[in-house]
Formats: sequence, structure tokens, C-alpha cells
Amino acid sequence: MRKEKLEELKSYIEQLKTIKLEKKELNGFIKSQGYECYLNNGSIIKREKLIKGTNDGSAVIIMPITENNEVLVVIEPRVFTKETVGIGFPAGYIEKGENPKIAALRELQEETGYVPEHLEQIDAFYQDEGCSSAYNYIFIAYNCKKKYPQQLDKDELVKYMLFNYEELEELEKLGYIKGANTKLALAKSKNYIKR
Amino acid sequence: MRKEKLEELKSYIEQLKTIKLEKKELNGFIKSQGYECYLNNGSIIKREKLIKGTNDGSAVIIMPITENNEVLVVIEPRVFTKETVGIGFPAGYIEKGENPKIAALRELQEETGYVPEHLEQIDAFYQDEGCSSAYNYIFIAYNCKKKYPQQLDKDELVKYMLFNYEELEELEKLGYIKGANTKLALAKSKNYIKR
Repeated sequence: MRKEKLEELKSYIEQLKTIKLEKKELNGFIKSQGYECYLNNGSIIKREKLIKGTNDGSAVIIMPITENNEVLVVIEPRVFTKETVGIGFPAGYIEKGENPKIAALRELQEETGYVPEHLEQIDAFYQDEGCSSAYNYIFIAYNCKKKYPQQLDKDELVKYMLFNYEELEELEKLGYIKGANTKLALAKSKNYIKR
Repeated sequence: MRKEKLEELKSYIEQLKTIKLEKKELNGFIKSQGYECYLNNGSIIKREKLIKGTNDGSAVIIMPITENNEVLVVIEPRVFTKETVGIGFPAGYIEKGENPKIAALRELQEETGYVPEHLEQIDAFYQDEGCSSAYNYIFIAYNCKKKYPQQLDKDELVKYMLFNYEELEELEKLGYIKGANTKLALAKSKNYIKR
């Protein structure tokens, strides 16, 4: 990777890093529910379920590929990680009743302003199957074009950059890409990407 | 895969499936903390952090390979998934102050009674980087031998089976393996496994 490109990435990380965390009573987006679970074999076990907002936390992950075969990557605050900033693919929660494909188009457009020519689901998985029903969908978005400005929520800060596939693998090897969602999307995309 | 083998797997799934969930006040293993986060660029954003027990939910995932080059897979209740039963690699939370490698040996032995000749960390990742600091370690456990009986907690029910690598890929393709942890471990193990 060119030195200037890594420098640009590092400058976004620098801007977005967390310098102080202050405990605060919030609305309670994250909640839990306790259950007694009756199994088919007669056992009864106790489990707690993780709830996010009014939904179960199911999400979409989008690997956006441009006309020039570059991959769009977002840089955003991940305040509870050691690095406090995460680098990965656009992603977001599916709204109640929303189709995963629609959610993927919406999240991609909101976070980057890019719109794909077509979208293909390449995998799906449970985020944390021991305590959650969150089911995440991985999409590749082909032939993406920048059509709109970003439309971010008040509390969102998202920078984006373009990398080729080799640079992405380099970023993962160097430890810049560390989230389960992006790592799994990257691994699963290998069968779908023209190098 | 031999028909009998898939039938054996299905019989465990049948035994372990959930037939009824009943809401119940529990201890609160899953909790959240709210924070105001001061970023380097002057922005202040609000985020909620997922807490599991007295820890952050960091876990180990172990892909155990036997002397005969078979892979040990556990079948256990995953009560909040659609299937209510999950199939994947042994895994578990790291205890406070515990070394990930020690946690991996402990979890493997508790869930299956198998002990490896050696253990290699092949990757690590954030489970849910938007709202958690949980950092998970993936290990391959080589030359595993059955040495002990299972030692399960009161609320744990774990069956296990041996599959070869091709059968594992078949199980993933057929939709039996759906958890992020196992999917990522399986994808990342490809560079380490003799076929």
C-alpha cells in the first residue's frame, strides 16, 4: 500500500478516536430478558436474551465494490474497543419489518452516498447465538457509484476510503480490520471477487 | 456424508431443541452501561456498552483436531435462534484475569473431555465492536485425545461428534453451522489445515 494512503487512514483514526468516556444514564437501547427454556429431552435451562432497541439486533453488512473494482471501507468510532476506532464495511441494524436487501441499500447510501447496480447476498449468520437471535446478512454491492452526500444520524461519524482487494488483506494482516462482521464478509467474499 | 452420520446429528438436534420459552426474572447476566464519549475532533457522542456478567464477554473458540485428523464439533441448545440448537466448535467466556490459552484448554476439556497436544492461536476479533469490548480468540487444538469425561455446568447440555473437514464444509453449506464464531474459525483455519 502507498505510504500516503496509510497516512490518510491514520489521520481519520486520529480524528475519530475517543479521548474520554464519561458514564451517563442512557435510554436503555441494550436490554435483556430472562427465560426458562423447556427442552425436548425434559431438561429446563435458564438463558438470558440480548435485546437491542425494539428489535433483536439483526444487521446487514455490505461489501461495496466500485466500477473500478475498488472496495469502499468506512472508518468510525468504536468507543469500547482498545483502538476506539473501527475500520470495516458499511453495516447497520435492520429496522422492524424491513427487508434485509432494502436495509443494505439504505445503510450503504446513508453511510457513504454510494448506490450499487446490484446487490447479492453471499452469506448470513448469527451474531452471538448463545444469547441473541440477531441474524446478520452479508451482501456484496456491485458497481457502486457515488450519487448522494452522506446522510448520517446525529450521533454518527463516518469517514470512508477506497482500497483494492490486496490492500484490504494487508489492512487485516496489519490489524486495522478486527470486527467479526467485516472479517467474515472479507473471508466469504473470496469466492465472489474477481482479482 | 454418510446418511447415518447426518441422522445421528439430527437425533441430537431433536433431543436438545426448545419446545417452550417462559419469561422469567433472572439475575441479570446481560447488562448495559451508558457513556458520553469525547472524541479527539471535539465531537461528543453517546454509546451503550454491553456487559456480560462481571466481564466484557471476551471468549475463546477452539477448533479441536484429533490424531485421526477429524474435527470435534459440539451440539448444544441455542434457545433464541430459529433452530433452537447450534452446531459449532467448543467455545466459552474467558474468566476474569484468565489467559486466553488457558481458557481454551479449560473450555475444550469441560465441554468434551478432550486434551490437545498443542494449541495455536490463528486469529482474534471483536464480537460486536459497535457496543462491546468483547475480544474473541480463535485457536486450533492439534492432536486432541479423549482423556476425561465432560464436566458441564448445571445449565449446560453439550453433545459432540467428529467430522472430517469436507463434512464440516458440507454442514456449513447445508445450513447446520450458522454462528459467527464457528464460521469465522472455519474460514480462517483454511490456511492451517492439512487436507
